[in-house]
Amino acid sequence: MDTNNYAVIMAGGIGSRFWPMSTTDFPKQFIDMLGTGKSLLQQTFSRIAQFIPDENILILTNDRYKDLVLEQLPSLTEKQLVLEPVMRNTAPCILLAALKIAKWNPEAKMLVAPSDHWIEDEVSFANDVLTSFKAIGDTGKLVTLGINPTFPNTGYGYIEEGAVVSSETGLHKVTQFREKPDYETAKEFIAQGNFLWNAGIFSWSVSGIINAFEAYLPEMLELFNKGIAQFNTENEAVFVSENYGNATNISIDFGILEKSELVFVIKANFDWNDLGTWGSLHDKITTSESENAVVRAVPHLREATGNMILTDKEKLVVVDGLKDYIVVDKEESLLIFPKKKEQEIKQLLAELKDKFGEKYT
Amino acid sequence: MDTNNYAVIMAGGIGSRFWPMSTTDFPKQFIDMLGTGKSLLQQTFSRIAQFIPDENILILTNDRYKDLVLEQLPSLTEKQLVLEPVMRNTAPCILLAALKIAKWNPEAKMLVAPSDHWIEDEVSFANDVLTSFKAIGDTGKLVTLGINPTFPNTGYGYIEEGAVVSSETGLHKVTQFREKPDYETAKEFIAQGNFLWNAGIFSWSVSGIINAFEAYLPEMLELFNKGIAQFNTENEAVFVSENYGNATNISIDFGILEKSELVFVIKANFDWNDLGTWGSLHDKITTSESENAVVRAVPHLREATGNMILTDKEKLVVVDGLKDYIVVDKEESLLIFPKKKEQEIKQLLAELKDKFGEKYT
Repeated sequence: MDTNNYAVIMAGGIGSRFWPMSTTDFPKQFIDMLGTGKSLLQQTFSRIAQFIPDENILILTNDRYKDLVLEQLPSLTEKQLVLEPVMRNTAPCILLAALKIAKWNPEAKMLVAPSDHWIEDEVSFANDVLTSFKAIGDTGKLVTLGINPTFPNTGYGYIEEGAVVSSETGLHKVTQFREKPDYETAKEFIAQGNFLWNAGIFSWSVSGIINAFEAYLPEMLELFNKGIAQFNTENEAVFVSENYGNATNISIDFGILEKSELVFVIKANFDWNDLGTWGSLHDKITTSESENAVVRAVPHLREATGNMILTDKEKLVVVDGLKDYIVVDKEESLLIFPKKKEQEIKQLLAELKDKFGEKYT
Repeated sequence: MDTNNYAVIMAGGIGSRFWPMSTTDFPKQFIDMLGTGKSLLQQTFSRIAQFIPDENILILTNDRYKDLVLEQLPSLTEKQLVLEPVMRNTAPCILLAALKIAKWNPEAKMLVAPSDHWIEDEVSFANDVLTSFKAIGDTGKLVTLGINPTFPNTGYGYIEEGAVVSSETGLHKVTQFREKPDYETAKEFIAQGNFLWNAGIFSWSVSGIINAFEAYLPEMLELFNKGIAQFNTENEAVFVSENYGNATNISIDFGILEKSELVFVIKANFDWNDLGTWGSLHDKITTSESENAVVRAVPHLREATGNMILTDKEKLVVVDGLKDYIVVDKEESLLIFPKKKEQEIKQLLAELKDKFGEKYT
């Protein structure tokens, strides 16, 4: 494996749409959402570790999840953790990771990838990422891996593919990034044929991304550059805890990618699912909408179709007469909720916080 | 309190209609079904102990529930337990209890009462039972307490009230006992006005009931009379384990009450509910059918009406969009079942036994 290749896995989310399976104390990426025996983070790590050296893989997450990460990935050393003391969206933690990696290895290329997505075809994933590393070149290209869209999903951002730059790597210019569109717009994107889903998977050289911060978020770079001497030493934590909160709360997409002229895209060859909603999880577990998707539970289902049934342990679940429901059973909470209302789960969480404080969320 | 007064509480059922709240290992009468902080057995015991001396109250149950009974009623001594080694319906265990009590006190009167019913008006209950004791007299009368029926329930047996015998006690002859009727017949009973529900609450003298066994089940009396020397001694258990299984499997209603000429009835003045189905439990907990009945759970209910929600501990239960469902959550099993199908729960249990053996039932 090329020791210049690095990866940072984004593991700071709280997965509130999957409450109560996912909670603030134990979010989605740390959960075995598919019943495979591995958490999504563990799956992501092992997928990447097949072509990037273990010790070159960093985990970006919130301070509070440090123990969870180390428990699930016991081979990690502390220097592989980039811990946000407060949430500041993706730009600050990616910059911090880039600066740490650059200090070890100024020649490094880095993959940025979410911790909580589903990608089954690990060979295609490895090939696509290695192709994207090759495509970075020496001009500081910022390369995104775009997903071929299969339907007009309104829950994803889109990338408009421009002119081809390299037929060898399949690299294209990016014409524009588009935030989550309405349904009509999404349908147009699909009809147009040159739009890809933005899966939050990026490749760049550390120098390329640091240059981009210098161009588009110079104050953030200046803030973190003050810590260069501390990075990768025992003093890093103190610097981060004192300064991180002063960074602008901004996403890498909005802060850098939508502004840079050096942004490119490669169409991914692997199937991908962001496991972003109960519906998408259901799709990944079963082959048809009317089937019941069951994770960990021991089901006895009578006249029950299209349900998503998850328990936190092996537990008998008897359901009669439910159609298209989410049933989630955990030690301290039980959710029985129509799948078609899954967008209301954030609202539901607000109701629960009003009523019970943080106790159940 | 009159030390000639005794009670036997029938606590041998397995409450399978309330699965999974009630299981073979931990049946309904040992459960706090109403969320009052006391099990149904504990409530029944304390209701009776208000007018019958504690030490005169016997519990009839199956051998396997001995520890459960002693745990829930720690003041009991072992001699107050009548333990069936095998289930033989109500006649044998009532005879055994009567013979034990008669050996202590040949003058005794005994109340027989189920352990798992709901009776809130404890004063009326005490008055009615004491009136029934008075009505027994010295001719060996067998007195039942009949419940004024409020609707044509097809799940109960009925007692037809005959001529009045004593206006002081409200004692009437019984014209006939009727097993669970069909709906049309039940409607006629109600229209006729002289039918009462049979709640399984009986009063008699020990001599009176023993005489009745001599008349109608002489073989059973003969069988148990062989143990007289052993009853209430440390040798009782050996006698019972060797002989109880040879007793005929027959109910006190069918074996004695439907045959005897000495059967009388007093109309009860207390409200009563047998808590025999999820529906009747729902009725006891809420005041309207559309209300949700919640036991122990911490509910957050959205567009949910008429549901019966029970958990085995304090646990958040979020339900959206369910109507008239039973939701029962226990450590090892979860049931989500339409209330209108509650009669299918026995069938469901058979399905579960086929599929999983005894594991969950």
